[in-house]
Amino acid sequence: MRDFTHDLSALALNTASLGHNVSGAGAGWSPERTLDACARRGIGGIVFWRREVAGRGADIARCAREVGVHVAGLCRSPFLVGPMAPVGKQAVIDDFRSALDLAAEIGAPVLTIVTGGVQPGTKGVEDSLKLVAGYLEEIVPYADACGVKLALEPLNPAYGGDRSCLTTTRDALDICDMVEAPGLGVAIDVYHVWWDTDLRYQIQRAGQRIFGYHLCDWLAQTSDILLDRGMMGDGVVALKPIRAAVEAAGYNGFCEVEIFSANNWWKRSPEDVLDIMVERFRTVC
Amino acid sequence: MRDFTHDLSALALNTASLGHNVSGAGAGWSPERTLDACARRGIGGIVFWRREVAGRGADIARCAREVGVHVAGLCRSPFLVGPMAPVGKQAVIDDFRSALDLAAEIGAPVLTIVTGGVQPGTKGVEDSLKLVAGYLEEIVPYADACGVKLALEPLNPAYGGDRSCLTTTRDALDICDMVEAPGLGVAIDVYHVWWDTDLRYQIQRAGQRIFGYHLCDWLAQTSDILLDRGMMGDGVVALKPIRAAVEAAGYNGFCEVEIFSANNWWKRSPEDVLDIMVERFRTVC
Repeated sequence: MRDFTHDLSALALNTASLGHNVSGAGAGWSPERTLDACARRGIGGIVFWRREVAGRGADIARCAREVGVHVAGLCRSPFLVGPMAPVGKQAVIDDFRSALDLAAEIGAPVLTIVTGGVQPGTKGVEDSLKLVAGYLEEIVPYADACGVKLALEPLNPAYGGDRSCLTTTRDALDICDMVEAPGLGVAIDVYHVWWDTDLRYQIQRAGQRIFGYHLCDWLAQTSDILLDRGMMGDGVVALKPIRAAVEAAGYNGFCEVEIFSANNWWKRSPEDVLDIMVERFRTVC
Repeated sequence: MRDFTHDLSALALNTASLGHNVSGAGAGWSPERTLDACARRGIGGIVFWRREVAGRGADIARCAREVGVHVAGLCRSPFLVGPMAPVGKQAVIDDFRSALDLAAEIGAPVLTIVTGGVQPGTKGVEDSLKLVAGYLEEIVPYADACGVKLALEPLNPAYGGDRSCLTTTRDALDICDMVEAPGLGVAIDVYHVWWDTDLRYQIQRAGQRIFGYHLCDWLAQTSDILLDRGMMGDGVVALKPIRAAVEAAGYNGFCEVEIFSANNWWKRSPEDVLDIMVERFRTVC
């Protein structure tokens, strides 16, 4: 298992942890200012959201190179299915391609996929998962051409209705098995999968198909399943055992900290949030 | 598969659907009034919560017999582990026994078990699940002596931190396998397990160990994971396929409707809620 005590090169900030630069105390922080704050601390990577960098991909990629912070990924694909997806298959594919173009432009090696929920007019998750697999078969060649890998991220079953019909690492790998493309893998976000006693087995099964590892914590008495994520160490996730499993499977990429926290972390000074994130990364992850 | 079009004998009202008789429009409805409202409609069963019937078990059992409504179960055990459990093992066991005494008194054949969340001082669910198994081994002889079966109910992983370290039917059956007692089985609540692509297999595995089947619906865009459950047919759960699987496994007991809904169903007239519940039970369940 890697030792992070004195090495932050594998730590990546997902800008959502500072309120996406659009809300909370981090409002107004430009991508450049965020990159600089990461660089000053020795944080190795950063993951932006599309809306933060759209139209400025090449500039921001250059800035990242200059300050020595790797662009570790881009958030995210459109929802493919469910009530919040763009209407119509072509609209989904077009937006997906646009996300891949931006990922390529900014130098992100991975695009995260959030599937969206249950397709209107259907019940249960099975039909929607099949639709997702079909969309991915269609998009994979374009992603390959962009040089961008696709990381399917299962979300907590609490999001099953609207945000993600994909709720387990098992289902994500089943889709990977169906699509069979070297550029398609999974992202393991501890917030979404920490409760799953099948996780260790599925991580082993995933092997080299783990394209992302996301950190935060699940607060024991969470007040909101969308915007009350905890800082690593403040919740009930067995962080080190999960990372040990992920690394035993062969993963040696970034650990991406993604904390949606409207009433706590987003209200604090971004400089403090980054300092605490670094401290926790060194000690409890 | 059973045909419910003209037969409500397998329908059971969980009184939570009327706001537990303590909140919403159903406030002030006594157990007797609720029993009468069920009897008038031909609803076959009822499930009370402990606080509604404590100290009046024998009276209410008599009333239920008189109006011809079966007491189908009792909600519920104390949390065994986690931040909301009684403090100390003896306090848990004592309260568990008290719940079993009341179940026996009111003639409930089954007591639902909600495990509670992650035990303070531990991380992940594994340690807590082991504690739960240990508690159950201790309580099973007392339940047997009371003539009351125990139904372990996995809850949606969104409750993993505080309410239920037990989040899947697989984990529930693993505990049953560990404890190995004929009086210990599982409850399948569609709200909690609808998203699980492993569910059909686990139901088959459960076989005769299914002691309860709970109905409501998961609203696609739910506003609250505790108090925004949907009426059957209004959400994304594939209700008939799940019941088909449960019945194929050998279950022929009650279908218990349990709808926590602070801002919708609890605000409506209980008479209307019961009428709509009956209509949906006949047509979409």
